Amino acid sequence: MAGKEQRDIEAGPPPPVEPALGVGMVGYAFMGAAHSQGWRTVGRVFDLPLRPVLAAIGGRDAAAVRAAADRHGWAAAETDWRALIARDDVQVVDICTPGDSHAEIAVAALEAGKHVLCEKPLANSVAEAEAMVAAAEAAAARGQVAMVGFNYRRLPAIAYARRLIADGRLGALRHVRITYLQDWLVDPDFPLTWRLEREHAGSGALGDLGAHAVDLAQYLTGEQLVGVSALTETFVRERPLLAGASTGLSASGATGRGQVTVDDAALFTGRLASGALASFEATRMAAGRKNALRLEINGERGSLAFDLERLNELSFHDHTEPAVSAGFRRILVTEPDHPYLEAWWPPGHALGYEHTFVHQARDLVRAIAAGTTAPAPSFADGLQVQRVLAAVEESAEKNAVYTPVPV
Amino acid sequence: MAGKEQRDIEAGPPPPVEPALGVGMVGYAFMGAAHSQGWRTVGRVFDLPLRPVLAAIGGRDAAAVRAAADRHGWAAAETDWRALIARDDVQVVDICTPGDSHAEIAVAALEAGKHVLCEKPLANSVAEAEAMVAAAEAAAARGQVAMVGFNYRRLPAIAYARRLIADGRLGALRHVRITYLQDWLVDPDFPLTWRLEREHAGSGALGDLGAHAVDLAQYLTGEQLVGVSALTETFVRERPLLAGASTGLSASGATGRGQVTVDDAALFTGRLASGALASFEATRMAAGRKNALRLEINGERGSLAFDLERLNELSFHDHTEPAVSAGFRRILVTEPDHPYLEAWWPPGHALGYEHTFVHQARDLVRAIAAGTTAPAPSFADGLQVQRVLAAVEESAEKNAVYTPVPV
Amino acid sequence: MAGKEQRDIEAGPPPPVEPALGVGMVGYAFMGAAHSQGWRTVGRVFDLPLRPVLAAIGGRDAAAVRAAADRHGWAAAETDWRALIARDDVQVVDICTPGDSHAEIAVAALEAGKHVLCEKPLANSVAEAEAMVAAAEAAAARGQVAMVGFNYRRLPAIAYARRLIADGRLGALRHVRITYLQDWLVDPDFPLTWRLEREHAGSGALGDLGAHAVDLAQYLTGEQLVGVSALTETFVRERPLLAGASTGLSASGATGRGQVTVDDAALFTGRLASGALASFEATRMAAGRKNALRLEINGERGSLAFDLERLNELSFHDHTEPAVSAGFRRILVTEPDHPYLEAWWPPGHALGYEHTFVHQARDLVRAIAAGTTAPAPSFADGLQVQRVLAAVEESAEKNAVYTPVPV
Amino acid sequence: MAGKEQRDIEAGPPPPVEPALGVGMVGYAFMGAAHSQGWRTVGRVFDLPLRPVLAAIGGRDAAAVRAAADRHGWAAAETDWRALIARDDVQVVDICTPGDSHAEIAVAALEAGKHVLCEKPLANSVAEAEAMVAAAEAAAARGQVAMVGFNYRRLPAIAYARRLIADGRLGALRHVRITYLQDWLVDPDFPLTWRLEREHAGSGALGDLGAHAVDLAQYLTGEQLVGVSALTETFVRERPLLAGASTGLSASGATGRGQVTVDDAALFTGRLASGALASFEATRMAAGRKNALRLEINGERGSLAFDLERLNELSFHDHTEPAVSAGFRRILVTEPDHPYLEAWWPPGHALGYEHTFVHQARDLVRAIAAGTTAPAPSFADGLQVQRVLAAVEESAEKNAVYTPVPV
Repeated sequence: MAGKEQRDIEAGPPPPVEPALGVGMVGYAFMGAAHSQGWRTVGRVFDLPLRPVLAAIGGRDAAAVRAAADRHGWAAAETDWRALIARDDVQVVDICTPGDSHAEIAVAALEAGKHVLCEKPLANSVAEAEAMVAAAEAAAARGQVAMVGFNYRRLPAIAYARRLIADGRLGALRHVRITYLQDWLVDPDFPLTWRLEREHAGSGALGDLGAHAVDLAQYLTGEQLVGVSALTETFVRERPLLAGASTGLSASGATGRGQVTVDDAALFTGRLASGALASFEATRMAAGRKNALRLEINGERGSLAFDLERLNELSFHDHTEPAVSAGFRRILVTEPDHPYLEAWWPPGHALGYEHTFVHQARDLVRAIAAGTTAPAPSFADGLQVQRVLAAVEESAEKNAVYTPVPV
Repeated sequence: MAGKEQRDIEAGPPPPVEPALGVGMVGYAFMGAAHSQGWRTVGRVFDLPLRPVLAAIGGRDAAAVRAAADRHGWAAAETDWRALIARDDVQVVDICTPGDSHAEIAVAALEAGKHVLCEKPLANSVAEAEAMVAAAEAAAARGQVAMVGFNYRRLPAIAYARRLIADGRLGALRHVRITYLQDWLVDPDFPLTWRLEREHAGSGALGDLGAHAVDLAQYLTGEQLVGVSALTETFVRERPLLAGASTGLSASGATGRGQVTVDDAALFTGRLASGALASFEATRMAAGRKNALRLEINGERGSLAFDLERLNELSFHDHTEPAVSAGFRRILVTEPDHPYLEAWWPPGHALGYEHTFVHQARDLVRAIAAGTTAPAPSFADGLQVQRVLAAVEESAEKNAVYTPVPV
Repeated sequence: MAGKEQRDIEAGPPPPVEPALGVGMVGYAFMGAAHSQGWRTVGRVFDLPLRPVLAAIGGRDAAAVRAAADRHGWAAAETDWRALIARDDVQVVDICTPGDSHAEIAVAALEAGKHVLCEKPLANSVAEAEAMVAAAEAAAARGQVAMVGFNYRRLPAIAYARRLIADGRLGALRHVRITYLQDWLVDPDFPLTWRLEREHAGSGALGDLGAHAVDLAQYLTGEQLVGVSALTETFVRERPLLAGASTGLSASGATGRGQVTVDDAALFTGRLASGALASFEATRMAAGRKNALRLEINGERGSLAFDLERLNELSFHDHTEPAVSAGFRRILVTEPDHPYLEAWWPPGHALGYEHTFVHQARDLVRAIAAGTTAPAPSFADGLQVQRVLAAVEESAEKNAVYTPVPV
Repeated sequence: MAGKEQRDIEAGPPPPVEPALGVGMVGYAFMGAAHSQGWRTVGRVFDLPLRPVLAAIGGRDAAAVRAAADRHGWAAAETDWRALIARDDVQVVDICTPGDSHAEIAVAALEAGKHVLCEKPLANSVAEAEAMVAAAEAAAARGQVAMVGFNYRRLPAIAYARRLIADGRLGALRHVRITYLQDWLVDPDFPLTWRLEREHAGSGALGDLGAHAVDLAQYLTGEQLVGVSALTETFVRERPLLAGASTGLSASGATGRGQVTVDDAALFTGRLASGALASFEATRMAAGRKNALRLEINGERGSLAFDLERLNELSFHDHTEPAVSAGFRRILVTEPDHPYLEAWWPPGHALGYEHTFVHQARDLVRAIAAGTTAPAPSFADGLQVQRVLAAVEESAEKNAVYTPVPV
């Protein structure tokens, strides 16, 4: 940097600027914070054809949503999601609310001509999801994009795993096994939040964790689950009520405890279209496991393994090598040729959880600019996951009997 | 060692010698070699009340069994297992043959007044196993011991895991998950051995690998499985015939291939008596996994994990610790206070697979000397595993419906 | 979010806003991008007493620095660092240039009354570093802050490790061993960049990687290195010239190759003030190791281990526990009680490399607001590291003889 | 096994029997037990040209050596090692005593015409080792074999690592780093055994652990260390006297403590003949590390890593693969094509520490039968290690100055 030059280079002609893409986000809790980070960062890292603008954030509590707007960098705040959808400066509606409001907001946004990104699971029921798919299809005909937020697809290790499988490096698939283990419900005195109430959350570990597992199984293999057999369990059936909890019951009541109406854990097995066997476990009762989304896929030519707690790594075994020198190799998925890595740091410099939201924003922006009206994962993909979850619940109710997933 | 002393100390009085315990072993393949190592070594490492003597080994092929006797250190060789049982110098009959001959040999040996150690799975059917239990109970009344060879119970890490659970370190149990993954059938040209024929092996991965998994689940938790739901699959349904294979078909036939009549893989879920959920997978089609018996158990106060490919280690998470400093710790199970370790090497010096057979021999010899007529795992324990396997097969045939395990 | 409410809450009174803190950054390559991310993000995640504003970015190439400003979100661009320092809207100067310009810029900025954050290593020589410390001390008397960018101190796992040691959980220290392994110079055709030229980089792996290792050793233990013994090596002594490389030689010359004038690798041992032994290795020639900063510290009461390639984890062994249940535990450093984690995601959700720059910005902003004029790591800390590196070079020149580090 | 055949096949002609090879072992503590296991087992597992016979064991205490003979299966017991050497039924003398008696016994045995296996380190001084090499060379002219017991060369993973390097899979070597960490001296009240007294042990961690590290570095690379720089330390300088300890001091004295006269830890760096850098650390003060012999070797074409606490695994990185799919692979060294594995269990079935002694016995027996008079590791190899250790001690005394290793 030469001390000789004195010119303020701001005086030069302005560089070409990409057209703006206004985003309006509904919800500002955990997912809202993560999506905000994604929207704020994506244009700073990736070359994009459109420039995302954090136009407005929406939520019911005026003070809280105003604080969230300031904290996360949104230009405006709205207390009515309909008003947010109606804004002229909003072209994309990003839905980060609990599952029971997804369908209403998404359908309204699509009908209002907006692109939509909707958090997973797509909906709390197959019927809602079907309505959303119908709205998305109608909107696609008008050039709108609708995407569901299965963010783990955007992990470089997962995207690279998909590439290896699509390239045939695993050959014919035999096994998929995925466990998603957390432990925040081990403590029986953890309170009764909305995530433990069926009317808000739809289901428990199944919809929250199992939905990711099912989506990853289908995304990675490129195949659909055709049937499942399931057991579910709620180990702790009553929990302390939250003060001001959504059930509306008084915390000063005789027991001060309320019913848990969703599953703590769900185990299911199934078959993929090719005949491969799949095994799933989703639980919030695995002491010591914080976010252990672990998967392994075995094929005739190789195997893959992944653990979300070590998300920069992918294990790959190439079964076509001589047995004497073969073994699971730990690929640090931080090379420039790995998915999403062209724009980040040098090899060996770890990415984190929130980068999935940056990558999701990148993919959505590019899809919008390219006119790709059914970007993966589409609402139809979200509906398919919902059908699997519904089949799981049906099987669990019917004594684990093998239950086909409707096509 | 003083160069001054010239006395040959062999001239001194003989030390007290423990009474001999003559062992007769039937079978001399993989299991025969491993058991031989156990019998030869146990008295060299552990203090025992009886001195095992490798009295006789039995097998059908005279030359082969004679060679096995020389190789493995057995004093005599027999080509008729009935003759072996009848020998006066045999007090323990150790059965290392395929499962279809277990019942006949074991019942005969017990009726002949011998103690019996029988390889797992106890039998190829529940009916056979029931007959064996009846014989064992009758023999117990005469002071005889009958044990089934679930050797993985004798791994120090597993025995220590059992101790931790029995001591309440995991609290109320929520989850048991066990996978036993191998890959020797991935190659579709692997030939049709007896292990792939139902009449000899009873079942495939289920009986071979799943039996270990079920036994460990029940041993470690101290609970029985009360019901299961299962899927099984045979991915490669025809394989090349072995020259001189047991099917008697000519290898020069039109196809030269025969039917695989057992499962390649079995997935099942279930419930333990306490209500804990359990998940199992046994397969020989997991490319890159050589002997991956992996288990994890989650309870309200802690969790445990183990991998047979790293058999000297146990992972333990103590959930009663503050979260800030808690985590799965890798216990190297090589301390003098760990089970079986009082007699081996200093801390950090690894044991191997075959040590399980040394430990099994130790426990059996001590049980015989102590007059413990139902040492764990007893024939009744083996029958219970057989009932679980039968329920798994029944569930798999009935579309995965939840199938109770008879008590 | 209630559809009934229609009020645009932007109409309400504005929330209280923290005073702005203008940042001017010099340099816009790898470090510039990482620091930008830190400055952009910090106020979105942490509660801060001052609001960082990305006021201006500086660099020599007008077009490039303008593009960097747009990409990374800086309001203005300057081609003269002196002009950048002089700006009224800049209160903090953040130096991300190669080491040979650190001293001049930092001293000028401090003399101009600005706070300074300077990338590591503090300087290319002890003399430069001493001048910087003098300037920092003079500035401290005026209430200015000067900090050196040893960003790995800001990793939650490292900060938590420091806390454990400070709390006495390791007792008297015996050993510190740190290796920092990369592999980008394994390829002999990797070109001759400025990092391989002594006049720009000062040293090679030693200053780039070894500086981090030395700082961490001293930070974690709270002790200084009192002497060192060293070997260094340049395995590949000539490399292809870059087109337009800083040496000014023509790439079309006879050989097209230039001299590497820094070390490829440095090994050194040393003693800490308490008498503990320390071992260091820094290399860019470790094939397969991308960013393997690995450290282990052993004390009388416990041990710690860390690997930058798994930066969310800390291994801790508590030697005061009974040996039977002791072992290195893997602490996932993502709990709310871990350093820096109060503001991020739920447990188990990984952070990445760049978060260190967010945390660094947080700590700097808080130090400025609090009037802490010598925040850790101070320029004096950076000078101490420089003295260690100089002693390493002196020892390497003097046949590895043990060389005291001047106090 | 057919019940029809009644013939006792013992009546048949005896099989051809290999000639016997009588072994006489001196010492019966830890190493004596491990060597006994090796001698007892080797002929039961491997095809050998000679049949080892456990002829006689020697030790000073008549009752103890008699008990050891019974326990470990030796036919006779001797209290004078000279008498043991003189026995006609002893062709191999196996020396398992502390280092201060190695030279006298080995030279006498070689002069008496016996083959010799001597535990490591070969001697307590270079002079002793030179005398042993001279005796071994004279004996070699008479067809006798002399081998030093660096048993870790016999680990399948290490032998396979050597093969990979010899095959050029790592290319030109850049780095060797080996740490051998134990923790049995962390407790300051651990007593003053012979291993902590210079006159018996020669040195501390250096000779006990460092000797293995140096041998492995040289064996694996096929190169010699040409110079070293070292720091050593004794952290706990006084320890409680053992009752009846070899120092002869009274345990009822004023302090009841004696001087530790060997190192607790030794750190050294060095250069291999090719110019590769090497780093070593040997310590008994690394809390939580039980037997952590860890090594990594980096070359231009690949890297290797190994950890004795996971001795069935070898990590290998092939740097000639595309970076996108490259990574350290975990090879489970249990395939039939791996060294020593042709005779053991199926893939995935772990071996343990003591198997190194079985393999050592195999290699020695085959060398004797083949007339290979300088089998690796020869006494000359042991002398070379001794010279490295002496150079380490000299460097440590001379302020870490780089000290050449005499050729």
